[in-house]
Amino acid sequence: MNSDIPEIIITSRQNPAVKAVCSLRNRPERERSRLTVLEGYRELTRAFEYGIKIVECFYCPEMFLGENEYPFLRTLSDAGVRVIKVAASVLEKMAYRERPEGLVATAVMKSHTLENIPVKKNGFYLIAESIEKPGNLGSMLRSADAAGVDGLIICDKGTDLYNPNVIRASTGALFCVPLAETDSVTALNWLRANDIKILSATPHSEFNYSEFDFTGGVAIVVGREQTGLTEFWLEQADLKVKIPMLGKIDSLNVSSAATILLYEVARQRHWQKPEWSK
Amino acid sequence: MNSDIPEIIITSRQNPAVKAVCSLRNRPERERSRLTVLEGYRELTRAFEYGIKIVECFYCPEMFLGENEYPFLRTLSDAGVRVIKVAASVLEKMAYRERPEGLVATAVMKSHTLENIPVKKNGFYLIAESIEKPGNLGSMLRSADAAGVDGLIICDKGTDLYNPNVIRASTGALFCVPLAETDSVTALNWLRANDIKILSATPHSEFNYSEFDFTGGVAIVVGREQTGLTEFWLEQADLKVKIPMLGKIDSLNVSSAATILLYEVARQRHWQKPEWSK
Repeated sequence: MNSDIPEIIITSRQNPAVKAVCSLRNRPERERSRLTVLEGYRELTRAFEYGIKIVECFYCPEMFLGENEYPFLRTLSDAGVRVIKVAASVLEKMAYRERPEGLVATAVMKSHTLENIPVKKNGFYLIAESIEKPGNLGSMLRSADAAGVDGLIICDKGTDLYNPNVIRASTGALFCVPLAETDSVTALNWLRANDIKILSATPHSEFNYSEFDFTGGVAIVVGREQTGLTEFWLEQADLKVKIPMLGKIDSLNVSSAATILLYEVARQRHWQKPEWSK
Repeated sequence: MNSDIPEIIITSRQNPAVKAVCSLRNRPERERSRLTVLEGYRELTRAFEYGIKIVECFYCPEMFLGENEYPFLRTLSDAGVRVIKVAASVLEKMAYRERPEGLVATAVMKSHTLENIPVKKNGFYLIAESIEKPGNLGSMLRSADAAGVDGLIICDKGTDLYNPNVIRASTGALFCVPLAETDSVTALNWLRANDIKILSATPHSEFNYSEFDFTGGVAIVVGREQTGLTEFWLEQADLKVKIPMLGKIDSLNVSSAATILLYEVARQRHWQKPEWSK
């Protein structure tokens, strides 16, 4: 079944190719090489499906969970990806998950500029300012995908998009949602030029988020976990809304707050699919 | 300023009291001793405010971020808490955060039974089945607090409530939201006895969540990250609803999904505060 995959085998944890993959756990090395690490069948197939360029794919058949891994490796090999069999101890060294599933790959990081973001009349965007936790950014990407934003703009980045934990938490949304990374001033100018209203959530507003009409062009802006939105974005906001807090704690997780607002906008627009998802 | 706090000082990382705190990172030890670890000014003050019994509090003044730590330590000492000064290296060993803030304490874990959950006509509950990731459970606690549930019931637990990462992600909601831990059959019987409808989200429903009336007694049920709700709960559900997914990915983070439903219920009930929060 696997006879048509070239059988290069790495058994040493000290092999330079193995060390190179491990070095991508560090952000400076990711940024220098423009490479990141993908792991597991679901993550890899989604990346491949959405046109992410995979460079090398390491596999360890004894760890496979299903039967689809070999056909997928053949597809990769046919597409020119170097496919390399490794010993279990080698794959475990490269993997960042606790229970590795036998597939680890390196892939080329896309660059994300504002040109990637579709300009639309009545567009719907999410702006994420300086988010620090990979799990939060990944989970926001997933909610932005599900709520059908036209694009997500990351301003003054905290964690980097290609942190393996962002990729994992996004469950593939990173590969399909239109994305840009820029600074806050450039993002603001882009929004103003495209007539998009800026919506921010703040406990100091008198108005609940559900009382507003979000059917026009709108960008939800959310800020860093500990400190919230900076003065810059709070001052620029066209719509300041409150998410009611009915318990004892005074704030929501940033990804939860973003999700509530994203789904309110999607609901008011009658669950309209974005162009990139049609 | 600090002269009235007893000055016991620990400088050795091998001190038995230090080792005892470190052992609480392990769930079996937490469950055996019924103790957990709290860390940082915000977490500790919230726990104290909501009546959590703090046993020992270790502090290292050179790490303090503000000026409120000494008065708080005095309050603890007056309340009979053992307050112990430690060297920076000792506090770093006990802390689980990357940037410790100079306060680490042990506290007694409450037991959470169904008797803690207020029975209310038209009550509003969240049921979390076998959630595995501490960050998700913590974030759900925070959303359940904010949306004003009457109680949260944890069934067939995955991660334990007193995992320090649950405590941290809940930002204190763990201490104030009425909580129970039980098995699914017992939870179901309790819901049936109290005339609470069971609401589950499933992609196989024809109906969007926003089309239902949630002003009667309702329990939102969400399940384990990878596998979703078990057949048991899907079969028992009175209301099956769909959260529209407008992008390419087929699921939301479990905490995001719970938050969307929690806030829809809260919105329909005109942001009514629960009794425990009044």
